[in-house]
Amino acid sequence: MEMLKLGSNDIAGLEDRYRALFINSLGGFKSVVLVGTENNEHKTNLAIFSSLFHIGSNPPVYGMIIRPDKVYRHTLENIIQTGYYTINHLNEQIYKQGHQTSARYDREISEFEVTFLETEYSGTFKAPYVKASKVKIGMQFLERIDLAVNGTILIIGKVMECFIPEVSLRPDGFIDLEAAGTVTLSGLDSYHLTQKLSRLTYAKPGTLPEEFTK
Amino acid sequence: MEMLKLGSNDIAGLEDRYRALFINSLGGFKSVVLVGTENNEHKTNLAIFSSLFHIGSNPPVYGMIIRPDKVYRHTLENIIQTGYYTINHLNEQIYKQGHQTSARYDREISEFEVTFLETEYSGTFKAPYVKASKVKIGMQFLERIDLAVNGTILIIGKVMECFIPEVSLRPDGFIDLEAAGTVTLSGLDSYHLTQKLSRLTYAKPGTLPEEFTK
Repeated sequence: MEMLKLGSNDIAGLEDRYRALFINSLGGFKSVVLVGTENNEHKTNLAIFSSLFHIGSNPPVYGMIIRPDKVYRHTLENIIQTGYYTINHLNEQIYKQGHQTSARYDREISEFEVTFLETEYSGTFKAPYVKASKVKIGMQFLERIDLAVNGTILIIGKVMECFIPEVSLRPDGFIDLEAAGTVTLSGLDSYHLTQKLSRLTYAKPGTLPEEFTK
Repeated sequence: MEMLKLGSNDIAGLEDRYRALFINSLGGFKSVVLVGTENNEHKTNLAIFSSLFHIGSNPPVYGMIIRPDKVYRHTLENIIQTGYYTINHLNEQIYKQGHQTSARYDREISEFEVTFLETEYSGTFKAPYVKASKVKIGMQFLERIDLAVNGTILIIGKVMECFIPEVSLRPDGFIDLEAAGTVTLSGLDSYHLTQKLSRLTYAKPGTLPEEFTK
């Protein structure tokens, strides 16, 4: 396999949009989710994020990076104003509508409306879910950390409730995201289904991991 | 599709290992990479991470979360001691060896040796790459942020050089990770290949995204 090498100066010299695609692809496959929020006047907002990451399970905490530009500023403001947001997985039926939420809509426009993704409220949670999503998480805002490196913002939140398809839950707590129809993203715009290779057993020194058959 | 709901108390009441699998799965598919380091005496270390995320493209910056426990402490110490680390994508040929690096080996043992993953040095970079990986990134450590929520550590670094298969690079800068054989992870132990649905065009208000045919 012929390999290409790019050094620091090569990367710095790339055209902006080219570099954005390149660096976004280079990091590997990503969690891609829709973040649902509303402001105190119940004006809803929906935005796509591909930087969700796991921080810990006890307490159950995730982080995500927000760029403070036009597309994502409304999400940031709503999270800080209300303290709540929802995370909604994309599936094959809604990924095109989900992608469309990244367009630069004005504040008066709700992405729920223009993309025809219906809101859903759980009754126990203050932020709007995406009805057509099959894995949904209600998050409480915990902390904001401004990153000096480029002015982006790390938002840390805690899982307050979640909804998953019953068929996706395995006896040991694993959620089979293929059974739930969840997609993954590479780069900025490439959506993928997945095909399981295998689950591996817990790794211990002196043995090799085996395929998990539970 | 029958849905299960779990509330905050339900999640807090789960058995630890069950909750770890559940919360790790719930966040969606993840980038899964091997991080190669060495200390100032050139003792190498290799560890698997599934929290890599994109912070920005200009400068090209990624973050990852490190738990300061036995498995990951050596990686953290080496990064801080030398200022450099490598990120290596997993592919179908090496994911079982990659998973094995999560076993609790003592400090004297290099995971490169026990997993038979050979080191490779680029000549221009101070940390060891994984020879059998097909997408490799040389990173310079920029910043450490300790997260109050659970004592984990956010490591921020900058891309200094990278290697990708020539066949995977598209004319607009997109790297086709399927052509590179990169796998993705869900939960703590489930490895997946991907199957592209489509690339979508840049989203703009007033139009719907289309499939990208370049």
